[in-house]
Formats: sequence, structure tokens, C-alpha cells
Amino acid sequence: MTPSTDSLARADQSQQSLLIRGGRIITADQDYVADILVRGERIVEIATSIPQDGVDEVIDASGKLVFPGFIDPHVHIHLPFMGTHAKDDYDSASRAALIGGTTTLIEMICPGRDDDPWEAYQRWKGKAEGLSACDFSFHMGVTRFDAGSETQLRRIIDDGITSLKVFLAYKGALGVTDTELFRTCQLAADTGAVVTAHCENADLIDELQSQLVAQGKVGPEFHEPSRPVSVEADGVHHFCTFLEMTGASGYIVHTSCSPAIEAARQFQARGVDVTIETVIPYLVLDKTYAERPNFEGAKYVMSPPLRDIRHQTQLWNAIGCGTIATVATDHAPFDFADQKAMGRAPESDFTKIPNGIPSVEHRCTLLYTHGVATGKIDLHQFVSLLSTNAAKQFGMFPAKGTIGLGSDADIVVWDPNYRGVISAETHTMNTDYDGFEGFEIVGRPSVVTCRGQVSVRDGKFTGKLGHGRAVPRKLARKS
Amino acid sequence: MTPSTDSLARADQSQQSLLIRGGRIITADQDYVADILVRGERIVEIATSIPQDGVDEVIDASGKLVFPGFIDPHVHIHLPFMGTHAKDDYDSASRAALIGGTTTLIEMICPGRDDDPWEAYQRWKGKAEGLSACDFSFHMGVTRFDAGSETQLRRIIDDGITSLKVFLAYKGALGVTDTELFRTCQLAADTGAVVTAHCENADLIDELQSQLVAQGKVGPEFHEPSRPVSVEADGVHHFCTFLEMTGASGYIVHTSCSPAIEAARQFQARGVDVTIETVIPYLVLDKTYAERPNFEGAKYVMSPPLRDIRHQTQLWNAIGCGTIATVATDHAPFDFADQKAMGRAPESDFTKIPNGIPSVEHRCTLLYTHGVATGKIDLHQFVSLLSTNAAKQFGMFPAKGTIGLGSDADIVVWDPNYRGVISAETHTMNTDYDGFEGFEIVGRPSVVTCRGQVSVRDGKFTGKLGHGRAVPRKLARKS
Amino acid sequence: MTPSTDSLARADQSQQSLLIRGGRIITADQDYVADILVRGERIVEIATSIPQDGVDEVIDASGKLVFPGFIDPHVHIHLPFMGTHAKDDYDSASRAALIGGTTTLIEMICPGRDDDPWEAYQRWKGKAEGLSACDFSFHMGVTRFDAGSETQLRRIIDDGITSLKVFLAYKGALGVTDTELFRTCQLAADTGAVVTAHCENADLIDELQSQLVAQGKVGPEFHEPSRPVSVEADGVHHFCTFLEMTGASGYIVHTSCSPAIEAARQFQARGVDVTIETVIPYLVLDKTYAERPNFEGAKYVMSPPLRDIRHQTQLWNAIGCGTIATVATDHAPFDFADQKAMGRAPESDFTKIPNGIPSVEHRCTLLYTHGVATGKIDLHQFVSLLSTNAAKQFGMFPAKGTIGLGSDADIVVWDPNYRGVISAETHTMNTDYDGFEGFEIVGRPSVVTCRGQVSVRDGKFTGKLGHGRAVPRKLARKS
Amino acid sequence: MTPSTDSLARADQSQQSLLIRGGRIITADQDYVADILVRGERIVEIATSIPQDGVDEVIDASGKLVFPGFIDPHVHIHLPFMGTHAKDDYDSASRAALIGGTTTLIEMICPGRDDDPWEAYQRWKGKAEGLSACDFSFHMGVTRFDAGSETQLRRIIDDGITSLKVFLAYKGALGVTDTELFRTCQLAADTGAVVTAHCENADLIDELQSQLVAQGKVGPEFHEPSRPVSVEADGVHHFCTFLEMTGASGYIVHTSCSPAIEAARQFQARGVDVTIETVIPYLVLDKTYAERPNFEGAKYVMSPPLRDIRHQTQLWNAIGCGTIATVATDHAPFDFADQKAMGRAPESDFTKIPNGIPSVEHRCTLLYTHGVATGKIDLHQFVSLLSTNAAKQFGMFPAKGTIGLGSDADIVVWDPNYRGVISAETHTMNTDYDGFEGFEIVGRPSVVTCRGQVSVRDGKFTGKLGHGRAVPRKLARKS
Repeated sequence: MTPSTDSLARADQSQQSLLIRGGRIITADQDYVADILVRGERIVEIATSIPQDGVDEVIDASGKLVFPGFIDPHVHIHLPFMGTHAKDDYDSASRAALIGGTTTLIEMICPGRDDDPWEAYQRWKGKAEGLSACDFSFHMGVTRFDAGSETQLRRIIDDGITSLKVFLAYKGALGVTDTELFRTCQLAADTGAVVTAHCENADLIDELQSQLVAQGKVGPEFHEPSRPVSVEADGVHHFCTFLEMTGASGYIVHTSCSPAIEAARQFQARGVDVTIETVIPYLVLDKTYAERPNFEGAKYVMSPPLRDIRHQTQLWNAIGCGTIATVATDHAPFDFADQKAMGRAPESDFTKIPNGIPSVEHRCTLLYTHGVATGKIDLHQFVSLLSTNAAKQFGMFPAKGTIGLGSDADIVVWDPNYRGVISAETHTMNTDYDGFEGFEIVGRPSVVTCRGQVSVRDGKFTGKLGHGRAVPRKLARKS
Repeated sequence: MTPSTDSLARADQSQQSLLIRGGRIITADQDYVADILVRGERIVEIATSIPQDGVDEVIDASGKLVFPGFIDPHVHIHLPFMGTHAKDDYDSASRAALIGGTTTLIEMICPGRDDDPWEAYQRWKGKAEGLSACDFSFHMGVTRFDAGSETQLRRIIDDGITSLKVFLAYKGALGVTDTELFRTCQLAADTGAVVTAHCENADLIDELQSQLVAQGKVGPEFHEPSRPVSVEADGVHHFCTFLEMTGASGYIVHTSCSPAIEAARQFQARGVDVTIETVIPYLVLDKTYAERPNFEGAKYVMSPPLRDIRHQTQLWNAIGCGTIATVATDHAPFDFADQKAMGRAPESDFTKIPNGIPSVEHRCTLLYTHGVATGKIDLHQFVSLLSTNAAKQFGMFPAKGTIGLGSDADIVVWDPNYRGVISAETHTMNTDYDGFEGFEIVGRPSVVTCRGQVSVRDGKFTGKLGHGRAVPRKLARKS
Repeated sequence: MTPSTDSLARADQSQQSLLIRGGRIITADQDYVADILVRGERIVEIATSIPQDGVDEVIDASGKLVFPGFIDPHVHIHLPFMGTHAKDDYDSASRAALIGGTTTLIEMICPGRDDDPWEAYQRWKGKAEGLSACDFSFHMGVTRFDAGSETQLRRIIDDGITSLKVFLAYKGALGVTDTELFRTCQLAADTGAVVTAHCENADLIDELQSQLVAQGKVGPEFHEPSRPVSVEADGVHHFCTFLEMTGASGYIVHTSCSPAIEAARQFQARGVDVTIETVIPYLVLDKTYAERPNFEGAKYVMSPPLRDIRHQTQLWNAIGCGTIATVATDHAPFDFADQKAMGRAPESDFTKIPNGIPSVEHRCTLLYTHGVATGKIDLHQFVSLLSTNAAKQFGMFPAKGTIGLGSDADIVVWDPNYRGVISAETHTMNTDYDGFEGFEIVGRPSVVTCRGQVSVRDGKFTGKLGHGRAVPRKLARKS
Repeated sequence: MTPSTDSLARADQSQQSLLIRGGRIITADQDYVADILVRGERIVEIATSIPQDGVDEVIDASGKLVFPGFIDPHVHIHLPFMGTHAKDDYDSASRAALIGGTTTLIEMICPGRDDDPWEAYQRWKGKAEGLSACDFSFHMGVTRFDAGSETQLRRIIDDGITSLKVFLAYKGALGVTDTELFRTCQLAADTGAVVTAHCENADLIDELQSQLVAQGKVGPEFHEPSRPVSVEADGVHHFCTFLEMTGASGYIVHTSCSPAIEAARQFQARGVDVTIETVIPYLVLDKTYAERPNFEGAKYVMSPPLRDIRHQTQLWNAIGCGTIATVATDHAPFDFADQKAMGRAPESDFTKIPNGIPSVEHRCTLLYTHGVATGKIDLHQFVSLLSTNAAKQFGMFPAKGTIGLGSDADIVVWDPNYRGVISAETHTMNTDYDGFEGFEIVGRPSVVTCRGQVSVRDGKFTGKLGHGRAVPRKLARKS
């Protein structure tokens, strides 16, 4: 399938027009200086020199980099948890995303085991539609698999939600049995949908947590020992075995450590179609953050946990040689004061700390700062990791993930010379702390457009709530 | 470095113009339908609908795929061997390449140990300049490393030959000592050049050959046993160790088997910058071809040798997950009747058979037929493997390797519906046999342009000898 | 703990005495010619020349090899299955074992999930005591783990049953949940018992079986595809992860293939104490046997299944370098005519074929024939694999597993020159077929003693039913 | 081959007799309490209670462990180096060995490239014969391979020197070319001899040393960076490839790190017969010792170098699962004051420091202290690692390596309760420092006999110089 350009040809000249002039356009495989003309929601012309007569708005991108809008394929926004909710809604989350250069979010739908999948899908979509300032889609969480849910899942896939999500962790809550996992993979193989998976063994973690808590090891520093790298590697090995048995395509979310990557590589070498995601916290932080005193470590509790710093090097190596395909966030925002505090000893323990290190706003600038500016990756890898690979993997390419004729006008004009400091005082995410507080950054978007709408200028949201739309998605089948 | 578009802006409107209309443009990360306008040697406009008034020539690409010109990063043309020479010169080779869709060749310069590097470089370049119909560059063979050669190598790198080539095989002829290998890698690390390497252990092969010949095992079917997969894997392990020690970037040519890939992967995971090439014969043929009776097997003698068919599957797997970056040819054309025959028993033995399976003409259509048409790879991978990755690796991107504003007008209009059969009777390569005789193919170029010149139409060469130019190359440093 | 020799000193001279003269004594680390004097149940003297005056019985072992009695650490005898039972009881099984040179059996106790562990232990023990002609012990099957069963398991361990057995396969029947597996490992770590495990993923197999049967693939040749090597490797990876998390010592039963071994090796290299067993059918047979027509293949249905023959080579390699520690049988005898037939199409399918290839009688001679006589292993390895390693692993050493002063007089006088042919017509096992029918063998026991009693002479049972005793076992802790 | 016991039967009753009473005898597969009667040089009786009437000497071993004499398969004694010599001769070295429990040494013969092998063999043997107090044998160093040396090597192998030694390191001195390595392996495959190899790449190290020295990095702390783990792993991979190609049996000396072990394991899994040795310094020391200030680090310079401490853990893991078969010393004694000082900056640099950490005296007690007393290994592993495996590997078993009838009376009565401290002031080795100065030890020999002669009592040499004999050796072929 290719984007029809008929509509471009027919593009109503009366549509709002926007000209981005003189930027250095960087995609996964392009690097050139040109002007980009947008009409309405799409890119209609890319040329060396486009006359600005009659153009509604002109943005000077000279001296700037021009990237396709970034995609965060792993976020949580509507997230009920222990009687409370994650702090962001699509208002704050989509604004934070856009300010950071992310123009499309893929949120996970997390129905309870007893929930109706279709109903959950509608509910989650309802939270986004009409509110989100950026585009969005979903991974459909499979938390139960039976004949009834299968029918609904097929309908949901047909509706363009071409990726499923399973948890091997979170026993008794979101986790699936091996039988359910097998059937989910079969459904994916049959339909062409992708199975995304959180690969930790729920029961094993449960037992390790109980042991630690019984020993009085209740602080956030014990979160990592309760889910060691071996447990994650075992989950990956297990998931990949199911992919191999069923022929389904898989995607491993938030890979945190070298043994997990090595487990997946074995299967790749045997021809299993499995793609590896990591998330920005693992590339910048390490487990010493979660060991900070005075419960400060709770800010850094996520799952899989932050690891020993040597895994950070190995993740960068895996990025360098293309083994890791995407850098997402697993954004899951909880306040420190009253939410993270639910897991504070002595009344409580680390197992009650809501998981998450909010980063939807900082992903791109952190990757630029720690990856591009340090020479670890080049600009093409930067775009692939943040946008193109996710667009291809999740059936949104080439509408998303590149800058081309007919593509959505999701454009990031990036100022490589910007220098700043991250702080909760200035961030847009709706949490009372920032896990990257005080981190110096290099580069940020100076302009972000979402389907033609100028949504960000120099760190300020200038878009419109409700502008965001559900992205039509195809199956990621080979063309 | 980005391509200056000043020259585009200044593009003399009097230059020859060419319009490629309505094709589906596929690059590593683009997929859209548009018109492409070429003026002189470069792409000056890509737009939904470009008026054809005043355009010198119009090509209708509707219903066709439009790819960037393919790059073959591993060919031999001027190849003195045992008192004879490989059969192609730039006349036949460049025409064959173009007919197959390849617009740029990178040839290896193979000086003797006693030759002067600069002189050899001039000699090899002299064979191409003024004769080649397509563009070209070189890997500078390092067959001796001392103070004198170092000085000249630096000068050659400065002249844009930013890749060196070493042989761990071919003892006493082209192979380097470990000391020379180390210093070559150091020079590469120092200058930013890439070291490309033929990874087989020369001495080991020498001994195995002597043993086999002594046992009367003299037919072409003993070529493979004389250089088993372990020997190739050992070469790769050895080469990668030198890369790790020196910090140089490396590129392993013509990887034929799974153990060699696995050896390289270990080093990638440890952060060594090493890229893996395979060549088209390994993806389509296997060692049973070299075992054909009546000396027919001699047609299939190349090094590393064709392997057991299970390695073919593993190479495709490695392509699928991105471990293999490029598909080249190692084109080395020798006639069957009088050249391959030099290794015919009983007067002679397999060690005297000139190595090579000519394929510069067929690489792209074979990869399309066996990769794209079978669903093993998608169109973006097809382009990456044949063009983009080589362009990036060898410092020619984005002039080569993509279709973009300002890029060289190396364009392949591909007819996906073509069906044909390979035969020595119809091929352009200057050999009296074709290793793929009788192979059915799907797809071929209907038009090929090389820097704006229409060089091929429907399998016929329409270009001009001498049109080809040495490609200016940068160092492949991270941007 | 060392064997007290006080009792030897006190050895009542009136006890029955037996002199084995002039044999070449081979243990895991001994090789010498000597006489062995037995009084009562134990070896009381080993010397160059022991006078035979007053000795009750003299056996001439000159020209023979003298081994310690072999131990089969993995057999099933009392095995209720689908309303029927495995065909052997301790009468036939212990006689068959002894004829083959095996003087000690370790049977698995398989309680149902609702059974009381202690009661099951008594029941199984009751089947052996008073009937078995050879010595015996048990692995205590853990098919449920809760507070009640834990108490009883501790009592059983205290009673000398220092090894537990878990199934990751056989869902809904014998398999444990991950929580139960964790707690079983914890109990083992706490007590020093060893966890032995059948490592296949039950749920995955269930699904694959359903798929195959639904496709009409119902013959015995589909047994292997229903439990492919990946599933076994995943089970091993999973089990080893639990060992690593708990610090327990583990033992993987009946390893059939290279990926399973490689999975275990990774954990060994990381310091996990896990020992690998294979069984004799995998070393001699391959999956083509299970593909024999006319339901003949059903004779060769066991789990894990017989594999592709290349795994046989890899198992021998793993034996050669010491990665595999023991060669057992997984003896499970079912008749072909009426029991294997329960899985015959079209009325039934392969999932209903009782699993097992009876081999308790042939293990040692098959290993001698295919291992020692072919030069794959030496005599010391032969003894280690069949006796010493199991004795050490399961806390019976040095009473069992070696020939030494004070050791039990379990002695095999082996005739290396014997040549014979296996047949159901002549075997002692109580099955109507023999999986090794027609196999030529080299070597067999000419005399076997079990605690001093001459139980076999030249293939004939000369012992006494009920002579066998439960072997006192220690924990396998490091001395 | 088994030891003839005829000679035992004929044992002249007039020979000197020795009775070792009541010890707990521990071999690789025995554990019992008994008396041992020695006549002349051999063990003639092992029994529960041997009358002491008429016995010439009685040693009370009650409460003690009784081990077979230990074998150090990797020592250097006669070692010319840079115009000086290693400090020990067979006088000091054999006394030190015996005091530590080692009754047999295997020394490496290191001829120069121009030396005549047979002449070198005679020269080296001449240094031992008539002087050594303990038994000895040799690995024949192959430093050149041509027709002449091959003839002599065959003669040397026939003379019972059934192991060859090659260096991949020490370029221009002892190292062999790949051609020579191949032919050496072929000779080994042909004769049944074992090839032992020092696996580091000479040329690579040469270059790394030059680089470091050029950068002014001249202290002993730069010895490790000049020969990193990758270089050792590459050597192992290379050597194992030659074994695989030729079918020879190999033995890797002094393995220091995990990548080297993993490289060898791959080949073991593919069926290559390769055995792994480590040496005691790697199990107890780490590279921080070589980083000690004031040139103190020079005491800890050996090759391969002491590594990062995490490799120590991995070596113990490899011992635990049987991957490492032997623990030797690579004893090479040089004085600190005037010999190690040859590499002292600023006049000199680390490349001139004579390599070696003398440990022939301490090997067994260090392994007992750090292995047995800590629970890392059991007593059977202790004996296997120090004696039995080397005896089998090098064709000396069962005369050496076990305690059995007819075996040489090489016996170590070990006092497990001894506590002491290592010091150069009290050691017997002829060096002015001790690398283990101040190390506390647990256990030591209280009596050591060498072929019946009581050579050590409680740390004092009581033997006789010249008592030692060249050990007759067989080929290590499978029996």
C-alpha cells in the first residue's frame, strides 16, 4: 500500500498553507536542505526553493534540523491503579509530548480480566478523542483470552488497532496464562497483528517480593533485586518460544538489560520476527538512582527496574548495531508526594510504589543529548529509533515516520544549539517531580507541527486540545 | 556534511532535463508516488505533479517502482591472475552492472606486495576513467604495510578512497601479517577510514589444500572442504579482535555462513563497529553446485566457498533482523573454457581454478526474485541492502543511496512484472558461462539513469562508455 | 561423612563370603587387577592375591572387567496411567535391571495433585519393599506445594529421600505452577535436597497437540512436532532461572537435544549448580523410529521425543566433555498390543499413546556397545555416567558408585567379549516388544552381585526377590 | 593398558615397607578409611587393618586425609631468559613441590628456534635426572617445525614425552607460525600425542606493548592492558580451530578469563577434544596486585596477566561445573631485586619484567584454603583438579593420580587442621619474594611420599635429591 497522492493533486488550494524554509531535512535515509510546503494536514511539496507568496505562514528553519514527528510507541495515560489514577490525562500528556517533539503516542489499553475488550477499547479511545492535542493510537491489552474476547479482538484489529499487548508480569491482574499467550500469538499470526509483550515472569517476582518483604527489605532499593535480570531474560526466552511456535511477529517492550537482549538475539538468528524496544530511562539512569535515600529512590521505581550501569553500555551497543529498534518511554506518571508514597515504609513497602518514571516530554532531547551529541549514534539512527522504526512496525508508515510527499505534516524543527536544564518547575507533565531534575540537555524542538498545525514554538504549546486523531493503521505485513 | 543545494538553486536551466513521471518511489524510508525532475546530473525537484513542458525527456514510471541506483560495494574488474586476467573490463562490467540496476561499483585495488600503493591506485583508476559507463570507486588493497606505504595510503585516503581492504587469506600473495593488519587498523582508526576484510586464515587453507591434493582429492567439490566454515569464523574472530584493540571500524566482505556471523555478532554486542556483507551467490546457490560432475562445479568455485544449504537459511535470517547490512557480488569473471580449466584434473587441481561466480549483472534481480517476491524482505530492506547501507558505509551518502533533492540522478525504474530467464547467451558480462543459467527471475530495471544519463532501457544499454566518474567520498564518521 | 569401617573390622567371620578373583577393576578413577573379598553385604578386602581357603564362593573374573554396580537414577515402575498401569512391577523390573548390570534403581513417586505426599511415599515404597531383587530409592514427586505438603516433604527428605521431582510438563496432571516450583526450589535450597525436573512447557505442548490433532495429524510421527526442541530448551531456561533465584541445586532429567544443553550451560557458567542427565534411547535412536509406518512408531513415543539424528551427535559431544553427567533410562514399560494402541488412529491419536521406551535392561550394554566399543568414551567415563555420578548426586556415595573397602558389594563382572542380539523374545522386561529389537550388542555382565548376593550369572537371574533394600541416602552437600 | 600386578605378587618381601594407618583415603571417586601398605615404590595392600609387625615404618594418619600425590602439569625450572635464568633448579623446585604435596612435575622444554629438539630434550632431562627429589616429565616445546624436527619429535614422543607445547605468543622467540602449528597438530593427531598451547596472539601483543611504551605507560600495571582478555580469547579460538581441522587433542594452559573459556566451550560442544587448565594465581589473585605502587606490581607480572576480579568468580564457576579440568601453576621463579627489576622504569619498562609468579610450593594448600575450606569444591574435585585429571590427560594414570593397588606410592597425608601463613622467609622456593606473602592458609601435607620414600614431614624436606625419576608415559588414547 502506498499513500494515494490523488488527494494531494486535488489539494484544495484554499487549505491553510505552511512553509518551512531552508532546514536540513533528516530522515532515516535522507539528508538534504530544502523547503517544505504543507497544505492542510499533509506535505504537498518539497523543493529547493518554494515561493512564499500566498503562503499563510512561513517558518524559517535555516540552521536547524528538520525531523519527522517523533512517535512514542509505549505510553500509559489512562491508568487506574490501586484506587487512584496516573496523573496525566491527554491534556497534559499530549502537550508534554508535543513540547518534546513527539507527535504520535501509542497508549496501552489495560482492561481488567473481567472487562469487555471492545468496551475497554471504546473507553480508552474516549479519553483521547476530543482532548488530545497530538495523534494517538493504541496497543490492545489482552488480559483474558477466550472465544468471546477473540471475536472482539478481531474486530478491534480490523478497526486499525493492529498490535496486541500481553503481560507476563503482574500476576492476578494483567498477566495472561501460557494458554492465553499461545492463543493470542495464534490470533496475531492469523491476522498479521503484532504481539507486544512485557517480559517478566509474574510468579517469580511475586515470590521474590514476598521473600524480601518478609526479610524487612521494604525500601525502593529492593525493587531491582525483586525482579533481577535473569527474570527478564527468562520472560524474553519464554515469549520468543511462543512466537517461534506460532509464527507470530513480536515486539519486546522496555528491554532493560543485556541478558534479555541476548535471549532475543538467539531467536532472531533462528528467523523469529521479534523486535526490541528499550526506553529512555535505561539509557540515562541506572539503579543507583533507585537506591537514593529518604525514599527519593521511589521516584525511580519502574519495571523492569533500572539496572547496574554496565547494562547501559550494552544497551547503547545494541542500539549501535541495530539490535534495538526503538527508544520509547513507558511513560507512567505518578506523583511523589501522595502516590509514590503509597509504598513508603514502615506502613507499606516498595511493592506498593506505583511504577513509572515520567519521560514522554524528555525522550527526544535526552536521546539527542546522550546519543547524538556524544557521537554514539548519528542523526539517521536518531530518527529511526524515535520515529521511523515505530511507524513501520505499527503500520503507520509512510504517513508517519518520514518526511515525504503525501506524508502527514508532523514535523519537528530542531534547534541543535539549544542548551537547557530539566526541571519539574518548568515541565509540562502533570507530576510533582521530574526524574531527570537538573539534567542538562542539548537541543530541543523550536517548532513542532502535528498534521500541519503549529503546536509548539520554543518550548511553548501553541496547538489545540482535541486536534489529535486516531491514526489509521495497517498491518505490518511485508509489502 | 549535507549536500549543498546552492548548486541546485543555481542549476542552469539550460541543462538537459529528464522527468520521471508517476512512479512509486521507494527508498530505505520512503514510499510515495511522485514525479522526479532531473537537470543535468542531479535531482532538482520531486513533486506530485511536475509539468512536462520544456522537459527534454519524459519517462513514464506509472505502475513501476522507482529506486535509487544500486551500489555494488565489492567487485573485481582489473584482476591479473596466474598470467591471465579476469574477463571483464570496465566496458563490459559497467554495462552489465547498469543493465542490472547497479550504477556505482566499488572495485578492489589489488597491488602485489612489491607494488607501490599510489602507483597501483593510479593504475586501477586509469582502467576505469574514460571507459566506465557507470560511477565507480575503490577499496585500497593493503598488501604490505610499512612507513613508505603508510604515507601513500594516507594520501590515497585523502583522495577520497576512504576504505582499505585486507586479505587474511591468499598467503604469500595478498595476505597481510598480523603486524601489518594491526597497523592498517591503526591507520584506519586514526583517519576514520574503514577496514574491509576477507576473513579466512591463509595458512590453514594452504595446509588443508595440500592435504586434499596429496590424497588425490583434486576436483572442484574439494574446494569447500579446503576452506570450511570454521576457518572463516576464525578469520572473523581474528579480524574483529584487531578492530576491538585498535578502535577501527570494520566491514567483513562476503560472509558465507552462520558461524562467521555469530563470531561477528559477539563483537557487535561488545560495541565493536563491524558491518557484515554477504554476496548474492550465497543467498541463491549452495555447495551442491560446486559438486556438479564433469568439472561443471568449477563454475561455482569462489572463496569463501558455497556452503551447505542450511547456511543459506541462516543468511536470510541475518538479513531479516538487520545483522547483514549489504548484499554485494564479489564479481570476478573468468571463462569456463580456458580459465576455470586451469584447475582441471588430472593435469591440475581445484586450487588452480580461478575464483569467482560472475553476478554483477544479476544481483538485484536475484535479490528481488528470491527476497522480495518470496516475502523474505520488504522493499525498504531491498533498497537498504543494495544501496543505502553501502552508500552510508562508504561515505557516498546522500549523493548516492537515496532519492532526494540534490542527490545524484542515479535512478532505477523497476518493472516488478517482468519475467525472464538468465542465460549466458543473453547476458552482458564477458564470460562464456553464467552461474545462474536457466534461473527464472521476477522483476528487472526498465530504465536506469546514471547521473541523469539514461543508460538502460528494457535490458539494453543506452548509455555512454566513459560517462562514469570516480565518486567523491567522505569518511563515514558519525555526523 | 565417610563410611565407618568399624563394622568391617567387626565383620562377623561367620558371614557368607565371596571372592572375585583376578578381574581388572575399573572405577571412575581406578584401573588395576586385584581380588575382591566380600563378607555379607560389603567389600572387606581388595588385594593382589587373597587366599581362597574357607571362602564360601569364588568367582573367576580373569579376563573380565569389574565395575561397581550401575545405578539407574530415572525409572518408572508403579505408574498408573489412564486406567491402566505400566507393565513392570518390581519383580520383572528389578530382575531386568540386574541382568543388565543395574543394582540400584531410583524410581519416581508420582502422586496425584490431591494425594497426600507421605501416603504416596509409603505406597510407592510398599510396592518395592519385600519384592525388589535390587536396591532402590525414590525421587519424591512434588505435584502440589502448600503448607501441608511442605511439612510432609520435609519429613520425607529427613527419611532419606533427598531429591524432589517436578514436572513442567503434563498440565493439569503432574505439572506444578511457577509458584509451586519456586517454593519447591526454596525447600530444596533450605534442606539441601536436589530438585530434579522434567523441563517441557505443559501449556505450550497442550496447544501444539490440539493444533496437530485438529489438522488430522494424529499418528505417532506427530509426537515430536508437538514438543519441539525449543519447548524443551524453554523449559530448561525456565527451571534454571528458578534455581538461580533460589540457590537450589538442580538436575535436569532426560535431556534430548542441543538447545536444552546450551540453555543449561549458560547457567552453569554463571555458577548455577545444575546437572544434566540424558537417557539411553536418545543416544542410540532418533526420530525416524517414531515415524515408522503401521503404528510401529508408537513403540518409540517418549517425552521429550526422539530427535533429529544430529542431536545424537551433540549429546555424545556433551558426554565427551563432561557436560552430561549421567545416562539413565526413563524406563516406562507399556505393551504395544493393548497399551500403546490406546493412541491409535482413527479412533484415537498420538496424544493418547502411553509414553516410554523400556530400556532398564539394556542401558549398560547399549552404552558399552555404542560408547566404549566405538571409542567415544573410555571405561572410566562409562562408570561415571552409569554409576559414580548418580551415586554422588543422590547421596549414595561411596556406599554405591565405586568399588572400595566398606562399599556395598554391588559388583558387575563384565564380559567385554560377549556378542548378542536384543530381542523381546529373550528380554526380561514385561513388555510385548523391545524398542531395540535386533540390535547387536557388545559386552554384558557375566556376574552381578547386589550387596553380596550373586544375582545374575550369564544373563540368568540367580538372585532373590525381596533382597532389595531402600538405600540410605545423605544430602548431596559438598563435603 | 593396566598395571601389571605380577610384580606386586613377586614383590620382594625384603623391600623397604611403609604402613600408613587409619587415614581417610580420598581419591577422585573413593572415600574410605583404611590402612595402606607400601613395599618399595608401590602400594601393595589397602585394607581395613593391616598388621604392623615387621613393617619398617609406620605413619599414623588417623584424623588425616590421604590423597594421591599431586601433579603439577605446568612448571618451568630450567628457563634461560635475557641472559639470566629462572632462580630454581631441580634442587629447590622439587623440594618446594614436595613440601606442598606435589610429587610429580611436568616441565616445559623450551628450545630456541635454532636448537635441535632431541638435544634440547636431553639437555632439559639432564637438569632433572640425578638431582630432582620428585618425579618429573616434560612437555616438548615445538618452536620450529620442519622435516628434521618432525623426525626428532616422533622419537621424543616414542620416548614417552607424549605432549607437545606450542606458543602462540612470544613472537620471534618461541612462537610458531600457523603453518608450523598446523603441522604440529597433524603430528599429534597422527601419533596420539596432546598439543598443549599458550594461547595469546604474539603479534597483537607486540603492537599493544609498543603503543603503551610509546605513550610512556611503562609500569607493571600496563602489563595487563598489553594483553587483554580478547587477545587470549582470540588465541583460544585460533588454536581450537586448528584442533578441529586436524582432529588433534589439545590442552589450553593457564586460562585466565571467561572469554577464553567460552571460546573453548564452543569447540567442546562441537566435539573438539580440548581440555582447559587454569593456574592457582588466577584463582586467588587479581590485577590489582599488579597495580601495586613502587614497582611492587612487578612481582605479579605473568602471562596471561592477572585479570579483573570478576574473572576469578567465573573461573571458580568453570571449575564447579567441570569445564576447567586442572589447576596448575605455570611456576616461573625470578627474583624481585635483580630480575624483575630488569623491567623497572625509567631505564626500562614492563615488557622487560621476567614473567612469573612462583607457586609450585603453595598450589595445593591455596586450592584447599580457597576451594575446599570455602565450600566451592569438594574433596573429590580437589583431587581431580590437582592430580587425577592431569595423570589421565598426560598418560601417567593409574600409576599416578590415584591411590590403588599397584599404583606408585605417591601419597599425601594431609592435615586439614593446620593453619599457617605464607612467607618468603619460610618458603623453600629460591626466590627473594613470595607473591602470596602473608596469605593465611588452611591445611597442608603432614607427610608426603614419593614412590615410597618419605620426602616431607610437617613442612620439612626429608627426602633425597636424585630420588626423582622420569615418569613413563603412555599416549592418552581412549582405553
